[in-house]
Amino acid sequence: MSLTVAERKLLAEEWCKKAKGKMDHVVVHVGCMSLKDSQDLALHAAQIEADSIAVISPSFFKPKNAHALRSYLKAVASAAPNLPFYYYHIPSITGVNVLVRDLLVGIGEQIPSFRGVKFSGIDLMDFGLCFSLMKPNWSLLYGVDEQMLSGLVLGADGAVGSTYNYVGCQFNKLLSAFEKGELVEARTIQFKLQDFLGSAMKLGFDVGVNKQLMVEVSGLSLGPPRLPLMPCHPDVAASIKQKYKSIFPQC
Amino acid sequence: MSLTVAERKLLAEEWCKKAKGKMDHVVVHVGCMSLKDSQDLALHAAQIEADSIAVISPSFFKPKNAHALRSYLKAVASAAPNLPFYYYHIPSITGVNVLVRDLLVGIGEQIPSFRGVKFSGIDLMDFGLCFSLMKPNWSLLYGVDEQMLSGLVLGADGAVGSTYNYVGCQFNKLLSAFEKGELVEARTIQFKLQDFLGSAMKLGFDVGVNKQLMVEVSGLSLGPPRLPLMPCHPDVAASIKQKYKSIFPQC
Amino acid sequence: MSLTVAERKLLAEEWCKKAKGKMDHVVVHVGCMSLKDSQDLALHAAQIEADSIAVISPSFFKPKNAHALRSYLKAVASAAPNLPFYYYHIPSITGVNVLVRDLLVGIGEQIPSFRGVKFSGIDLMDFGLCFSLMKPNWSLLYGVDEQMLSGLVLGADGAVGSTYNYVGCQFNKLLSAFEKGELVEARTIQFKLQDFLGSAMKLGFDVGVNKQLMVEVSGLSLGPPRLPLMPCHPDVAASIKQKYKSIFPQC
Amino acid sequence: MSLTVAERKLLAEEWCKKAKGKMDHVVVHVGCMSLKDSQDLALHAAQIEADSIAVISPSFFKPKNAHALRSYLKAVASAAPNLPFYYYHIPSITGVNVLVRDLLVGIGEQIPSFRGVKFSGIDLMDFGLCFSLMKPNWSLLYGVDEQMLSGLVLGADGAVGSTYNYVGCQFNKLLSAFEKGELVEARTIQFKLQDFLGSAMKLGFDVGVNKQLMVEVSGLSLGPPRLPLMPCHPDVAASIKQKYKSIFPQC
Repeated sequence: MSLTVAERKLLAEEWCKKAKGKMDHVVVHVGCMSLKDSQDLALHAAQIEADSIAVISPSFFKPKNAHALRSYLKAVASAAPNLPFYYYHIPSITGVNVLVRDLLVGIGEQIPSFRGVKFSGIDLMDFGLCFSLMKPNWSLLYGVDEQMLSGLVLGADGAVGSTYNYVGCQFNKLLSAFEKGELVEARTIQFKLQDFLGSAMKLGFDVGVNKQLMVEVSGLSLGPPRLPLMPCHPDVAASIKQKYKSIFPQC
Repeated sequence: MSLTVAERKLLAEEWCKKAKGKMDHVVVHVGCMSLKDSQDLALHAAQIEADSIAVISPSFFKPKNAHALRSYLKAVASAAPNLPFYYYHIPSITGVNVLVRDLLVGIGEQIPSFRGVKFSGIDLMDFGLCFSLMKPNWSLLYGVDEQMLSGLVLGADGAVGSTYNYVGCQFNKLLSAFEKGELVEARTIQFKLQDFLGSAMKLGFDVGVNKQLMVEVSGLSLGPPRLPLMPCHPDVAASIKQKYKSIFPQC
Repeated sequence: MSLTVAERKLLAEEWCKKAKGKMDHVVVHVGCMSLKDSQDLALHAAQIEADSIAVISPSFFKPKNAHALRSYLKAVASAAPNLPFYYYHIPSITGVNVLVRDLLVGIGEQIPSFRGVKFSGIDLMDFGLCFSLMKPNWSLLYGVDEQMLSGLVLGADGAVGSTYNYVGCQFNKLLSAFEKGELVEARTIQFKLQDFLGSAMKLGFDVGVNKQLMVEVSGLSLGPPRLPLMPCHPDVAASIKQKYKSIFPQC
Repeated sequence: MSLTVAERKLLAEEWCKKAKGKMDHVVVHVGCMSLKDSQDLALHAAQIEADSIAVISPSFFKPKNAHALRSYLKAVASAAPNLPFYYYHIPSITGVNVLVRDLLVGIGEQIPSFRGVKFSGIDLMDFGLCFSLMKPNWSLLYGVDEQMLSGLVLGADGAVGSTYNYVGCQFNKLLSAFEKGELVEARTIQFKLQDFLGSAMKLGFDVGVNKQLMVEVSGLSLGPPRLPLMPCHPDVAASIKQKYKSIFPQC
């Protein structure tokens, strides 16, 4: 959301190009404040052969109810009718509190390409109530990393989150333990991740900090975030990195 | 909290008397807006031989941090030093957002009778981070009925909630399924309960409605709630009851 | 709200006794979490010949709409039907967001002793819309000290606030300037008060700090606040006092 | 914010062209989620000879403090260093709660083209505290139409708001009464406007409704809002229009 439409296209192109043969699935996020920009990005995603698109609600002028949000999503999807379509729900950032279970009513008829939701919220009653509205090839992906296990136990089909860029190996262990029914092990890993993420949040855990952690894990230079986000202060970075190393020595 | 101190004493006495030989454990809630009232009720609970006490934070003049809340709880506990003591965390009603994991730091030294928390919140990172601070004879009880399973998977030692008065049989099945590792069954029950509770919440699910449901289940006449709460409107009661019967025909 | 009912009675008695011949009007606040306590205090206020009573809404179990709140207030007023009755609106503390203009509809018929509102909110459209519902002997008193002038310009009949205990002399000057139509002077005083109160709020401006300031102004020893409020830290007190002296050297 | 960058340029061009010789001042709003888009629009505004620019904070990735927001605004201003620059503060929509008085500290040195703030907030202590930080050619414009008088009394240099498109004639009377010191008259007009706007807000007063009212007043066909906003329902429009006519028969 900090990039221009042209920059977002360039970035999507590079990801699709580089991912070929290496990644199973590239989802391009095409949400914008303007419907026309989202449609433009959706069409572009189809042209560059992305595997699917995801869309966040406009958050400046907000939809006033589920019907308005569904109408908006339908208009975006219509620009790339053959691309699998996901709604990205993240009310803590957007302030859009439309219940996902209300949004899902009739969405398959309105948006034939609809395939699911990335649910980054902590209202787990709303999350749970979505499952009865799911169709065979739809997915409910959970997006609150620090309580992933609580989403999994309700039946999440997978997870998408920013911290998987650097603690993904731990989350994979958590997923694997959960799938084997080893709840005590899964819980132990979740607690470690909560310990790490909780400490990071107390220090102000924004995109600047997240980028810094990705840099350290990947060894690639990602550069600073764009204003109004600020680069991670070296002291904060050092403190979080130390916590990270102490909790996950071998990750 | 709608009762006077004298009424609360009377009620606690009756519960302790009637529970003798029938219930394992009676916890008397002694939280008030005034420390002195809470101390008075704590002492009374000891005199009537309640099994333990639970305390909510004052919510009119709120504690400004964990230290202030801990100091308050310590002062209440000191009035009944031999009674097991629980903190009751319910930020959606009190507006007191002190993290429980911060509250727990050093609480065993400050309050020797401390035995645990009723955690009625949806910040499951905070909930999870409490476990490493637990001592052998302490408990973490989860209190958001509509997402009980998400609390259990993190290790909740039990659950306390108002809806257990009338759908407790279903929750017992959920608990039992979870303990046996039958997650699909546990999830199915949780979803039914979410369906029921979600419908009830859309109709305005307050103490008046809860009492009405208890009346129907127990057959006892409980009377209306006290103002400013309003009695359940008959149409609302009928609608919720019908939903209840359709989801739980034999409960 | 930190006192027991018995303590509140004692305090009210002392104020009524000491005020005789010295103060024009003693309003006893009788709001509680329990209707019965409020009725008890209302009756007591009548017995000790207080001039009027004010009532805050219960904030633990909150009224769900204006009708419920009006019904509650009516039940309190009925315990002291001859005492002038004021509603005390302070949504930032109670979380009760019933619009006052909705509450006022028909309140004169329901509560013959109704005489007005202490409006401690910053929704000045709601405040303004109350005026057309006022009756001849009713008052709208504004209660957000740091923006008193903005309430006065809309027609506030007076003001009630905690900081008037120690910067009342400045607010009296503001009131006097406003009444004479000297808006520039009124504004200048309001800005000084905002400077002082804004600084104090940045340092955590709670009842502990307010009491400390009253002690310094009055020379009386008021003692510490009751838990969970904490006494004012001496550094904070010193810093606020210094700001106070620098802005109001002769107050 | 619902338009693409290209559409916003077209619109700005038309306004500047049509306004020539008719309007004193055209302020182009150049705020975006992306700094680069804002810089692009700022440069464009300079090229088309707009009189000034205004900038809202990005609200998806929010600035974490005044320093971050100031740094962002400086970067936008640097793209059009000779154009008078205004910050547009509207926390109810953006969720950006940086105090304006904190933002203003040192802003003149950082942004030489800075000329003031459109303050669309109801924290009137923050508003009042900005005045002492103002420089001779800066302005503080108030933007909460329904309580304009409360902003004027604190010294607002003017007002900017969406409803001035159709009830501007009334607000001009309010301004004129205030300037003459006729506070009772100013208040009477403000109350009428609160009556009208309060009713409209109860019916859901969004951009769709605002556009409908502009259509009716101007006689021009403005078309519907863009999704996710919905067009004004005819019943709502009729109801608000009737209220409008009854309160302002000759406007």
